[in-house]
Amino acid sequence: MPSTPHSYTAASFKTVAIFAKQKAGETSHSADDITQALTQIADFLTATGHRVIFGAQTAERFQLSGEIMTLPDISELADVAIVVGGDGTMLGIARQLAPYDVPLIGINQGRLGFMTDIAFDDMMPLLRAMLEGKVVSETRTLLQGSIYRSGELMHHTLAFNDVVLSRGSGSGMIELRVHVDGLFMYNQRSDGLIMATPTGSTAYALSAGGALMHPRLNGIILVPIAPHALSNRPIVVPDSSEIEIEVVGGRESNVNFDMQSVASLQHGDRIVVKRSEFTITFLHPEGWNYYDTLREKLHWNEYPSVQGQLK
Amino acid sequence: MPSTPHSYTAASFKTVAIFAKQKAGETSHSADDITQALTQIADFLTATGHRVIFGAQTAERFQLSGEIMTLPDISELADVAIVVGGDGTMLGIARQLAPYDVPLIGINQGRLGFMTDIAFDDMMPLLRAMLEGKVVSETRTLLQGSIYRSGELMHHTLAFNDVVLSRGSGSGMIELRVHVDGLFMYNQRSDGLIMATPTGSTAYALSAGGALMHPRLNGIILVPIAPHALSNRPIVVPDSSEIEIEVVGGRESNVNFDMQSVASLQHGDRIVVKRSEFTITFLHPEGWNYYDTLREKLHWNEYPSVQGQLK
Amino acid sequence: MPSTPHSYTAASFKTVAIFAKQKAGETSHSADDITQALTQIADFLTATGHRVIFGAQTAERFQLSGEIMTLPDISELADVAIVVGGDGTMLGIARQLAPYDVPLIGINQGRLGFMTDIAFDDMMPLLRAMLEGKVVSETRTLLQGSIYRSGELMHHTLAFNDVVLSRGSGSGMIELRVHVDGLFMYNQRSDGLIMATPTGSTAYALSAGGALMHPRLNGIILVPIAPHALSNRPIVVPDSSEIEIEVVGGRESNVNFDMQSVASLQHGDRIVVKRSEFTITFLHPEGWNYYDTLREKLHWNEYPSVQGQLK
Amino acid sequence: MPSTPHSYTAASFKTVAIFAKQKAGETSHSADDITQALTQIADFLTATGHRVIFGAQTAERFQLSGEIMTLPDISELADVAIVVGGDGTMLGIARQLAPYDVPLIGINQGRLGFMTDIAFDDMMPLLRAMLEGKVVSETRTLLQGSIYRSGELMHHTLAFNDVVLSRGSGSGMIELRVHVDGLFMYNQRSDGLIMATPTGSTAYALSAGGALMHPRLNGIILVPIAPHALSNRPIVVPDSSEIEIEVVGGRESNVNFDMQSVASLQHGDRIVVKRSEFTITFLHPEGWNYYDTLREKLHWNEYPSVQGQLK
Repeated sequence: MPSTPHSYTAASFKTVAIFAKQKAGETSHSADDITQALTQIADFLTATGHRVIFGAQTAERFQLSGEIMTLPDISELADVAIVVGGDGTMLGIARQLAPYDVPLIGINQGRLGFMTDIAFDDMMPLLRAMLEGKVVSETRTLLQGSIYRSGELMHHTLAFNDVVLSRGSGSGMIELRVHVDGLFMYNQRSDGLIMATPTGSTAYALSAGGALMHPRLNGIILVPIAPHALSNRPIVVPDSSEIEIEVVGGRESNVNFDMQSVASLQHGDRIVVKRSEFTITFLHPEGWNYYDTLREKLHWNEYPSVQGQLK
Repeated sequence: MPSTPHSYTAASFKTVAIFAKQKAGETSHSADDITQALTQIADFLTATGHRVIFGAQTAERFQLSGEIMTLPDISELADVAIVVGGDGTMLGIARQLAPYDVPLIGINQGRLGFMTDIAFDDMMPLLRAMLEGKVVSETRTLLQGSIYRSGELMHHTLAFNDVVLSRGSGSGMIELRVHVDGLFMYNQRSDGLIMATPTGSTAYALSAGGALMHPRLNGIILVPIAPHALSNRPIVVPDSSEIEIEVVGGRESNVNFDMQSVASLQHGDRIVVKRSEFTITFLHPEGWNYYDTLREKLHWNEYPSVQGQLK
Repeated sequence: MPSTPHSYTAASFKTVAIFAKQKAGETSHSADDITQALTQIADFLTATGHRVIFGAQTAERFQLSGEIMTLPDISELADVAIVVGGDGTMLGIARQLAPYDVPLIGINQGRLGFMTDIAFDDMMPLLRAMLEGKVVSETRTLLQGSIYRSGELMHHTLAFNDVVLSRGSGSGMIELRVHVDGLFMYNQRSDGLIMATPTGSTAYALSAGGALMHPRLNGIILVPIAPHALSNRPIVVPDSSEIEIEVVGGRESNVNFDMQSVASLQHGDRIVVKRSEFTITFLHPEGWNYYDTLREKLHWNEYPSVQGQLK
Repeated sequence: MPSTPHSYTAASFKTVAIFAKQKAGETSHSADDITQALTQIADFLTATGHRVIFGAQTAERFQLSGEIMTLPDISELADVAIVVGGDGTMLGIARQLAPYDVPLIGINQGRLGFMTDIAFDDMMPLLRAMLEGKVVSETRTLLQGSIYRSGELMHHTLAFNDVVLSRGSGSGMIELRVHVDGLFMYNQRSDGLIMATPTGSTAYALSAGGALMHPRLNGIILVPIAPHALSNRPIVVPDSSEIEIEVVGGRESNVNFDMQSVASLQHGDRIVVKRSEFTITFLHPEGWNYYDTLREKLHWNEYPSVQGQLK
């Protein structure tokens, strides 16, 4: 369950880790710009008495010098991590840092993200204020998923957005038997089933017709993808629930975690999903609130979308 | 927040109130059948040492004799209420009994209901067992809604399913300004907005495209009705939230509570909705679980609905 | 059925009628600006040998002088009508001109509309070219709706977007019995039912979950509003169909045509809807196509909306 | 475009082909039952002066004797084909017979189908009447799909329900560039895109959120699967349209036709979909109408689905 927000002060953030987008992709900034910005952040932090550590892959990609470590080492030392990239970059770092309770600050390299809410182009004054403790902190839940075959644990991992079972390439629907807390919910025939956290409720689950969930809601949403039965609607269960899915039909199926780790499934495989014991803390600039981000990202300001007008 | 389930014994249910459907409607049983059944229940209860009280309107409609009281009096005395009718009957009685913490048993006169889950035709053995303490108890949340005009409270009431703001008859859309916990969420142009409890998530909210919510989820779902902006999707917020809606546009609008109490609104009126301090306890036969009811009511067993088959 | 596009030349547009938004509303231009612009259009048209007629209400509102007529007279004389306003203004004028086969040019005063696709701020060069015959013409269908009570025709009117049956203010659902071409389709319980043309498929029908329809599709879409049965999905029928709705349940209901003409209904009232014998012709600048407008209006260019990215 | 219904007489159906479900699957009848029923049909037909031909695979699977031919030969000779199975069986036979204009009669072996509307258990009297010309005939459209790679046609086939582009197994979304009649519609990021005939509008397209289309509607529906942009709604275009999809992004994608023929795609591949020149004729018993089937299959008779009732 999301914990009570911490109080932070300048003393809370002595050691700062810095990560940037690992893979090439859409960005409005060149690698050189990023190198320069990361160096600028590091210089500023050092000058203001912080210890700065670059992630090894980040340092390599952007040819950075200074203190460089791999993620496992960083996770032991860092008081806070600054992630420069998009929501995808944030997702990957967050999943890895989850067990270590390192809070994250997200800086978007391109467009404003759901999780990366500080604009690259004017990050310095905000970062300065935040590292002095002027932050809004927010705790997000994760899911843990386990795959069992013939009773044996095959795979166990975390998901920050979602655990997704889906049909294989070019095959027809799959059939899934779903239990929640040991109680039979239904046999579902569909393209697949998404189990999402509040964080994931703005991602794939939303595309597939799910409801949004406020980050502080203690819920997991189950969203069927193109379900055969028209009444197989999204359902939100308490995040204390244990969801168990058995693959009972369909030619090919697989499960993925945050779209970043995939496993093929066989009939009889069971996937058990529940809230992880870990959580992730995001730090936002003072004045941040969730609804502002939602409104901006979902274009709630721009109407009308459809033809029509108030009388 | 839903409380921990009670333990019940035969001693828990000394005084039993009995209510039946007030208004004529679809039912597969005649008034005579119901009179006979209610009498049979009362006789059985009396024979097994219970005090039996009929609701005044119920007694009048079905010409019952015995101890008869109005609802306020009953609420002080009854250890349990048996409601014979449909979900609508249950809803009405539940709202009235909410402040008094009287648990309810629902007997459906026609079709199985979401809340009335004991079949009229074979209720006697189940009732007998339940009044001996063989029950599954379940706590449901309610909403309380307040209407303010020019800062003054005009109306305050409870809703078990939902609080619904909607456009008037034959007028165009309305515009609502929505704040949650004092934070601006959006201005919404639509036919209206439904705020539903988990109980209400299987009612109007579902028709309007909402997600289902498990009764133990601590959430309130906001479901826009035919929203102008296609990205105005249903959103689930924690049930600790205070939702405030201001009517800012549209010719005519009104608010209703469980479709049973309606008030006209003017521009500038504010409706404040939050979880009620009261809860309602349902008693179900042993072995009951929520998913069985859901599966039955939503026809999740019957597939295929659409053309197609597993390969 | 949409007719084959005409060829137009400068000679096609000798007499030009001009209309502007009748009611105050959101606009980025002052009444003075509009007066000036309308005068400028009129002067240009006169100078280039056209006869110019202002609609009476338009002339009054914007204090215009010159040849002024009421709509019935204009409809006999005008070769083309220029409408300055939003989609709502266009809708109103189009319905009135439909029987007279006067093609329409739409100029949006504020935001780009679905039907008013020429920007106010740079309309002069486009208008010049269009009135020389450089146009894309497009034919749109209308619906005609008739209300019968006890077998007698009570009301008969045209709709350009939609005919909408809906529940009254603060009352519960209504029940409608729907026949198509004399064949029973279903009894529907809902907040109402929208019957929309392709033009209306981007309006209320879209908000209520309908599919878009290309203007050249010979179809009418029936979109239930918050239907009780989850499988009551939107359905597109050929526009040669005659749709008959009987109100069979619910406390209060009404029918409206383009949200601009409303009638209260009683149980037993029948509403018969079919394609009108009239059509409306829109003229667009050369190079116009429907998908550009759709993409612009529905923000199809802006992605991502939801969290996520291509791998 | 659907042709005008034929008139049929007993003389129309001299040579009758018989097919049954090829693959094992869910059925309430044993192979022996089916063998016996097929033999019974054949004996009856022979006795009433018809020439009877069994499909080769059907004859083999159910160990039938008599005149046996492969489908290409049958297509030249048969005046009508009787198909015993489910909608999937019907789909397969229909696609193969499409070029030869052989009308089809569908007998469902299990549940009533959308296309197989005669119950196995009481088919004899209906078949007798139908082969005397007492039929309702109905013409359905097909799609033809062509796959081009580097400008060369790689594959060309028919689809009776739908042509579906979708993402590969375990990969993220794909990006598709869609043109209709040479006009750019949009770039869509999604799990895929369904292009369906009216027949297919009750199948996968419906699960993915599409609207139903009456079989006589001259339309093709494009239904995005879990689209990234929430305003990427289903759209119905005239069936005279040529739809061209280019795969422009995503790791893995494929296209299938009626879920029965699949091809892997590469970036730059183009899929061109339009109405086939062929059509399929279904024969139904007198009194049949489309809405009865729809109502039955979509459970439109069973309400309420959601909680609630008429007031």
